[in-house]
Amino acid sequence: MDLNSDLGEGFGQWPLGDDDALLGIVTSANVACGFHAGDPSIMRRVCARAAGTGVAIGAQVSYRDLAGFGRRFIDMDPGELTADVVYQLGALDGFARIAGSRVRYVKPHGALYNAIVTHEEQAAAVVRAVVEYDASLPVMGLPGSAWLRLAAGAGLTVVREAFADRAYTPEGTLVSRRLPGAVLHDAEEIARRCVAMATGEPVTDVDGGPLQLDPDSICVHGDTPGAVAIAARVRDALTGAGVELAPFAA
Amino acid sequence: MDLNSDLGEGFGQWPLGDDDALLGIVTSANVACGFHAGDPSIMRRVCARAAGTGVAIGAQVSYRDLAGFGRRFIDMDPGELTADVVYQLGALDGFARIAGSRVRYVKPHGALYNAIVTHEEQAAAVVRAVVEYDASLPVMGLPGSAWLRLAAGAGLTVVREAFADRAYTPEGTLVSRRLPGAVLHDAEEIARRCVAMATGEPVTDVDGGPLQLDPDSICVHGDTPGAVAIAARVRDALTGAGVELAPFAA
Amino acid sequence: MDLNSDLGEGFGQWPLGDDDALLGIVTSANVACGFHAGDPSIMRRVCARAAGTGVAIGAQVSYRDLAGFGRRFIDMDPGELTADVVYQLGALDGFARIAGSRVRYVKPHGALYNAIVTHEEQAAAVVRAVVEYDASLPVMGLPGSAWLRLAAGAGLTVVREAFADRAYTPEGTLVSRRLPGAVLHDAEEIARRCVAMATGEPVTDVDGGPLQLDPDSICVHGDTPGAVAIAARVRDALTGAGVELAPFAA
Amino acid sequence: MDLNSDLGEGFGQWPLGDDDALLGIVTSANVACGFHAGDPSIMRRVCARAAGTGVAIGAQVSYRDLAGFGRRFIDMDPGELTADVVYQLGALDGFARIAGSRVRYVKPHGALYNAIVTHEEQAAAVVRAVVEYDASLPVMGLPGSAWLRLAAGAGLTVVREAFADRAYTPEGTLVSRRLPGAVLHDAEEIARRCVAMATGEPVTDVDGGPLQLDPDSICVHGDTPGAVAIAARVRDALTGAGVELAPFAA
Repeated sequence: MDLNSDLGEGFGQWPLGDDDALLGIVTSANVACGFHAGDPSIMRRVCARAAGTGVAIGAQVSYRDLAGFGRRFIDMDPGELTADVVYQLGALDGFARIAGSRVRYVKPHGALYNAIVTHEEQAAAVVRAVVEYDASLPVMGLPGSAWLRLAAGAGLTVVREAFADRAYTPEGTLVSRRLPGAVLHDAEEIARRCVAMATGEPVTDVDGGPLQLDPDSICVHGDTPGAVAIAARVRDALTGAGVELAPFAA
Repeated sequence: MDLNSDLGEGFGQWPLGDDDALLGIVTSANVACGFHAGDPSIMRRVCARAAGTGVAIGAQVSYRDLAGFGRRFIDMDPGELTADVVYQLGALDGFARIAGSRVRYVKPHGALYNAIVTHEEQAAAVVRAVVEYDASLPVMGLPGSAWLRLAAGAGLTVVREAFADRAYTPEGTLVSRRLPGAVLHDAEEIARRCVAMATGEPVTDVDGGPLQLDPDSICVHGDTPGAVAIAARVRDALTGAGVELAPFAA
Repeated sequence: MDLNSDLGEGFGQWPLGDDDALLGIVTSANVACGFHAGDPSIMRRVCARAAGTGVAIGAQVSYRDLAGFGRRFIDMDPGELTADVVYQLGALDGFARIAGSRVRYVKPHGALYNAIVTHEEQAAAVVRAVVEYDASLPVMGLPGSAWLRLAAGAGLTVVREAFADRAYTPEGTLVSRRLPGAVLHDAEEIARRCVAMATGEPVTDVDGGPLQLDPDSICVHGDTPGAVAIAARVRDALTGAGVELAPFAA
Repeated sequence: MDLNSDLGEGFGQWPLGDDDALLGIVTSANVACGFHAGDPSIMRRVCARAAGTGVAIGAQVSYRDLAGFGRRFIDMDPGELTADVVYQLGALDGFARIAGSRVRYVKPHGALYNAIVTHEEQAAAVVRAVVEYDASLPVMGLPGSAWLRLAAGAGLTVVREAFADRAYTPEGTLVSRRLPGAVLHDAEEIARRCVAMATGEPVTDVDGGPLQLDPDSICVHGDTPGAVAIAARVRDALTGAGVELAPFAA
């Protein structure tokens, strides 16, 4: 099983999260590429450390929106979105190659991640960027999203992720963050759910019924209070249950 | 002989110069990488057209300074400068590869170009970026600069350029733009000087004496009034004199 | 009658339109405030010239989007939008006061202008910014928009504008730019329509019927080919018809 | 005596320091204006809280350099620097006025603060901005700097500050941060020195001799580990010694 997390999301003088601690826990790092977070010096450092510890480097591409941390939908022209994504892929890949590695996958960030669940034109624009840049790159996203459907249709490898700390509806979609109980905070419960996900067992949906998720990767958060402790607990529980942790892309 | 010019220096809604016309004249395009000018859509378009017409793509790396067009010296930490340059190299290289080509050389822009004539730490920082990114990339700059000296010392191929429309001192340095006569405007005179430079003849320095320049590339400007006409005249004069025009890097 | 136009929309090295020419034609200048265009040096210069020629200075507030020239809808939090608008108002007002004037009105730009025709939350957020900053400032916009309706409800003075060069539906809304004939190009026809608008006569709608517009201000464009000539023709036609041109806000 | 500190230096998703805690300690807040830190929402919040607690709002103007946090010298054209400073003054003043207050003084940040100790042209450019914007605004800075000298010459009120946690040479200049002992970390020692500064007693210079500082304001830092605790200790020591704390500007 693969564990992924967002990393390198500081900017200049402003740190965010504990990149070093997370790089000792996850197997895949979604590295910010400078458009919502992540300046070149941070990108360089995170890539060097990820490569040094065998963590796969993924491109966490996003809208150009430092002030909004990429969390605001921008109604971009698809052609411009494709170019913006290629720019970010190339920039991160330079640091990955310097570190002796390569960008191994693509996972959009924030509002772009959410938009391309349903926004066909923007989803197609990001797919096009990956196809043009390197059609061998897997793409990570939400099962059932336009993004993964169009990517698969274009011949890309898709990596379906589940969220360690999010509640799911019986239909397998995420419970809206605006509803109570959408985000789980209990490390033990989160860890148990991750073990279930990784061993083919169902998790409990928000209504109490069983839900089969079968993800290719599990996303743990890095920037919330207690995030590192929860991620470490998830890792320990998984390895304790005999689940082998390794990047899906090597 | 190689003819180079700055291209792709618009941003968003704002065009600058006539990229298409210049791509029909020069053999090497110094393409802006987004830090002083050049958004991803422009970079994509210029790379596609350059690759399509056999013009070599060079990375015109610069300080992060859209508001100042990269024309203001920034007293950066060398490590951060190295990272900023790698970021720009990787970003442009993505578009070059999509276009079926690669970044073929590196030419710093504006205040960075001027700074590293003498600023050893910043010159070394840019050299380090090129060495790390791809030590086979030639670097272009001013003969006698710290930049070319340190690059050569690091094993990089150096490309010495001369300016088609600038007056030179007897010592072979540029006459300061603050002095009268620093910039030439007469297309015929500029063309004659370029033919001299390209055929091993001396040009006339600002004091009237002969000056041997022997450049590897001649820089023509693209963003001044009449720039395209002057560049075209230079090209015609060179080919009329039997000088073969071709990128120094293929 | 008031004639308004967008001004000060260059940025750094990049000019846009002919500010000086337009300042000799219009009576109200919608001055860009740095978020989609307009750096501080441009803002200063345009304010100085506007104040010197009796042209009213309006704040052309927008989304923070230099790369997209403010033409892309951004799904911002309303509280953040209010703060962004106050920031722009204050910044421009500083230059207006230095020039011996003040910001006299507010006209949102581009995608923000279009969004708040129908987007109630964003419209309310911009209204709130104006009320908080200076509730005596008139606001300019499209008749029938949520923006003008909410502004009026909040006690602000509303200025309804019509577009000199746009076709209208029989219902008085703008014909979409995607449809043929949406934008008029003939200077004489545009001038005739403006005279009709200013003298209480109907214009011809896109279906050939009469349409009464009765605007408080007429918007002429500044950044399209022939824009200055058309604007000058409009001014001449209006004054020739005995229409007195003056800012609505003094 | 006045106690000042830098506040509002987060940006978007990235916090910095503990603004709320410091607003309960200092009497003057140097509020970032968006160029090196401080987005409009942060500026709005800090101004509201400062005004609500009687803390004077100062404009912490800086170079346009989010990536470098305003800590890199930029060799700007003086006219552009003047415009950049006016822009920031106006923007912050809008939030201050909404909060029922006004910008009460100007203190440049980071590399600009350091540059105008000796850089006459840039110092004059910032002075010009203040004179043009509001010549009744006091300016804060380092005793002996070109900035304060030119400001006084232009008729501005100058406020000389001392640093609570910095070692001084016998000449009264700051010991370079590159030297050992340049920054003090012991809260009791720092508090004792501040009491001395505020009661007309000498402090001990780096060589052990007495040094008379007589500042108009004492600067406490807000963004270092333990900063809030040190600032609180300084405040307690001053009030315990009978020093009345109040903004120099009301």
